[in-house]
Amino acid sequence: MTIRPPVLRPDIEGCLAALSTVLGSNCLYTRREDLVRYETGARYGAGRAAFVMRPASTEGVSAALKICADHQVVVLPQGANTGLVGASTPDASGHQAVLSFERMASGIRLNHINRSVEVSAGVSLSTLNNVLENSGLWFPIDLGADPTIGGMIATNTGGTRFIRYGDVRRHVLGLEVVLYDGTILNFMDQVRKNNTGFDAKQLFIGTSGQFGIVSRAVLEVHPLPHNAATALIVPSSTAGALDILLHLEECFGPQLTSFEGISETALAVVFSEVPQLRNPFLNEPLPPYALLVEVSSWNKDGGNGINVEDELSREIERAFEEGKIENAFTQDAINLWSIRHHISDSLKRKGKVIALDVSVPRDRLMQFREEACAQVQRLADFVMIADFGHLGDGGIHFNMIWPHDVPYDAEQVERLRTTVYDVVASHGGSFSAEHGVGPFNAHFYDRYVPAGKREIERLIARAIGFLENDKP
Amino acid sequence: MTIRPPVLRPDIEGCLAALSTVLGSNCLYTRREDLVRYETGARYGAGRAAFVMRPASTEGVSAALKICADHQVVVLPQGANTGLVGASTPDASGHQAVLSFERMASGIRLNHINRSVEVSAGVSLSTLNNVLENSGLWFPIDLGADPTIGGMIATNTGGTRFIRYGDVRRHVLGLEVVLYDGTILNFMDQVRKNNTGFDAKQLFIGTSGQFGIVSRAVLEVHPLPHNAATALIVPSSTAGALDILLHLEECFGPQLTSFEGISETALAVVFSEVPQLRNPFLNEPLPPYALLVEVSSWNKDGGNGINVEDELSREIERAFEEGKIENAFTQDAINLWSIRHHISDSLKRKGKVIALDVSVPRDRLMQFREEACAQVQRLADFVMIADFGHLGDGGIHFNMIWPHDVPYDAEQVERLRTTVYDVVASHGGSFSAEHGVGPFNAHFYDRYVPAGKREIERLIARAIGFLENDKP
Repeated sequence: MTIRPPVLRPDIEGCLAALSTVLGSNCLYTRREDLVRYETGARYGAGRAAFVMRPASTEGVSAALKICADHQVVVLPQGANTGLVGASTPDASGHQAVLSFERMASGIRLNHINRSVEVSAGVSLSTLNNVLENSGLWFPIDLGADPTIGGMIATNTGGTRFIRYGDVRRHVLGLEVVLYDGTILNFMDQVRKNNTGFDAKQLFIGTSGQFGIVSRAVLEVHPLPHNAATALIVPSSTAGALDILLHLEECFGPQLTSFEGISETALAVVFSEVPQLRNPFLNEPLPPYALLVEVSSWNKDGGNGINVEDELSREIERAFEEGKIENAFTQDAINLWSIRHHISDSLKRKGKVIALDVSVPRDRLMQFREEACAQVQRLADFVMIADFGHLGDGGIHFNMIWPHDVPYDAEQVERLRTTVYDVVASHGGSFSAEHGVGPFNAHFYDRYVPAGKREIERLIARAIGFLENDKP
Repeated sequence: MTIRPPVLRPDIEGCLAALSTVLGSNCLYTRREDLVRYETGARYGAGRAAFVMRPASTEGVSAALKICADHQVVVLPQGANTGLVGASTPDASGHQAVLSFERMASGIRLNHINRSVEVSAGVSLSTLNNVLENSGLWFPIDLGADPTIGGMIATNTGGTRFIRYGDVRRHVLGLEVVLYDGTILNFMDQVRKNNTGFDAKQLFIGTSGQFGIVSRAVLEVHPLPHNAATALIVPSSTAGALDILLHLEECFGPQLTSFEGISETALAVVFSEVPQLRNPFLNEPLPPYALLVEVSSWNKDGGNGINVEDELSREIERAFEEGKIENAFTQDAINLWSIRHHISDSLKRKGKVIALDVSVPRDRLMQFREEACAQVQRLADFVMIADFGHLGDGGIHFNMIWPHDVPYDAEQVERLRTTVYDVVASHGGSFSAEHGVGPFNAHFYDRYVPAGKREIERLIARAIGFLENDKP
């Protein structure tokens, strides 16, 4: 059904000749200076592209993929290229073609009564939410980066409000997909419930483009909260952070919209590297661990004594009296969220960031942290660990920073990654929580994915023509 | 990989001989009087079983399936047998074996910090929630029936609180599955995020046992609300029901936990057939349409002026002033929910119920109702239409009641079903919202499921050995 072209004998000249009859010159870039900006990831990854295709429609994507398949040219779909695993950046061979979605970045159709939006794959998260702003609705997946909708579906992202809204998967009502042979599959459902056999959309969600490329989607959107209260909380003990999570979940249910953890090292780096941030701890020592918490309210006027900030303060006070909390700051939500959102960028200034995006069951979070930190420090005590994460959903961005002044040792880095992933696996966790599988982590797939699941993927891939054609 | 046995030459004697060496006599029923209660659905469907297997463990399920596959005996997994489509009841041939999960009805392990529960497939929804009761958590899929967890996963049920919690799919963290050749697949993840390729669990959710049988699961559970306010609302016009939905979603966000619609006919039947229910309309005429609305609160003490009943009353008043609401009753939530939950049973006393479970985009709900009712009445004016449904998620139980005193005409019934489903399809809806596909509706699959989706299912089925072996 799909044909992902083999990688051995790409006919790039022939491919370009055929493409030029279908895509205008504005849609097909071949000059070196035009290619550069598609060759380096927004955060990670760099390589060389054979050429870049920029179709403006699903039909253009289909035509481009068919021609590339016919000429055995490997195609890399590229959205905002903000992933962690190098999946949307060409490799060093110069034989891979980039399929950019930047010209499919408009086209947003809101169905207000259905609370759904039809959107092209190249639309960015921020563009979508800007368009929705006046409707009282939003697409509530909140990320540090600003990816495209297509990329978010391919990696099934989560983000800082997963605890309330879940992942992208549960927001996808409909999907249009183009297979690698150019076949267009239209599953653009607007309904929330459709149980007529296997939900074929699932093949294309979180599978990093393995089976086909998302070109359009129908997404569920949500009522925008009218108010939110934010707090930075210092738990009495790091292990006790989860007691506070349970306390707030019990009191606020779905109104608890974020529960993030930040390590002392991450706080230290962000405050030293981003001086415009106000450090609420002033000259006090930084705590070993801090929590960023958000509670939202959909209540419009608060005129009847309901005030979400008061409610959060009251519960913080109660948890303080119960000995769960040592300290808390509830002023200036904008600054508190800025602290969280500036961490990733600030870490880079300290060295090369080895960014692992992992998840474990929530009850294992703190034990995982402790063990992983100890093992990494034993192997390489010069490595700085600056983790932060989504405690509410068991996600941790386990960042190891290799200092600029220590010669980079790729083998040692591999050992460190394997060490951390082994600890993740020992707690029943996943080595890829929300960035999917790409060149940076594909070699861990066999080590950590259960045989039964790999076998099913292999059978499906073979069934739709992928593996057989991809073999050398 | 799996082998679903062919149906042509079942060796029932040989199968029973082999099974008796593996399953004790308590686990294998062959006597006619023991089989009866497995042959009739709790609500629909009846047939004859060759025998009944009642294994008490996953290993027992595996051994039983392997032996049945070896002897080419078709196996029907059976939970509480509460579905609408006849998928868990044997056909009339007497050649099909029932695999009952009633001895796998205990085994519930709560992980409180992870907010998850490990559960065997035969555990009923009510048993699970009884066990969770004191933990402050619950599995919030709310249904009129009391199915097993395995059945709920196989059909991906939704229920009356879908608007807040969604379907079963989004609650399944982990799954253990037994394929028809006896292979046990263990995907018993406890994590919320695991994007390492295709999520193989999806093959077994909402697919009615097509690819394998669910034996255990890990489910996400939620904090139990501490308070809820319920109202029965009469919209100023039936078409305006959705304005009220949008109004309440905007004010309450995820605190709006139910938004159900009930037709005048359904109200009339339930009040006439269930006299212990109190009819809030007393001697007034029943309204053409009514809404049952629930708003929940996780706030414990309400001591700071927050009272979810007051909040709901205030918003009802506001909507009344805006002309959206004609009348509303907020007293006695227990009676209001009883009205809703007694509808299905009361309808049966009026005649043979042709129960269609469909969904359309929310903005099409009222137009669909109008068109479907008109077309059915044109074809058969003696048929009573008593629909009710989950307006918040676009679901409608479109019930047609064939009166006892009119000779049943199966061909005419098929015409009626096709007529309604055609209207559903013309609005982009689904002919099976949450009961899956079974003998009662399988013949509609080709008519309404897009070719691309059918092709993918066919390829996957063939890849894992199902179709080839199932062909005559």
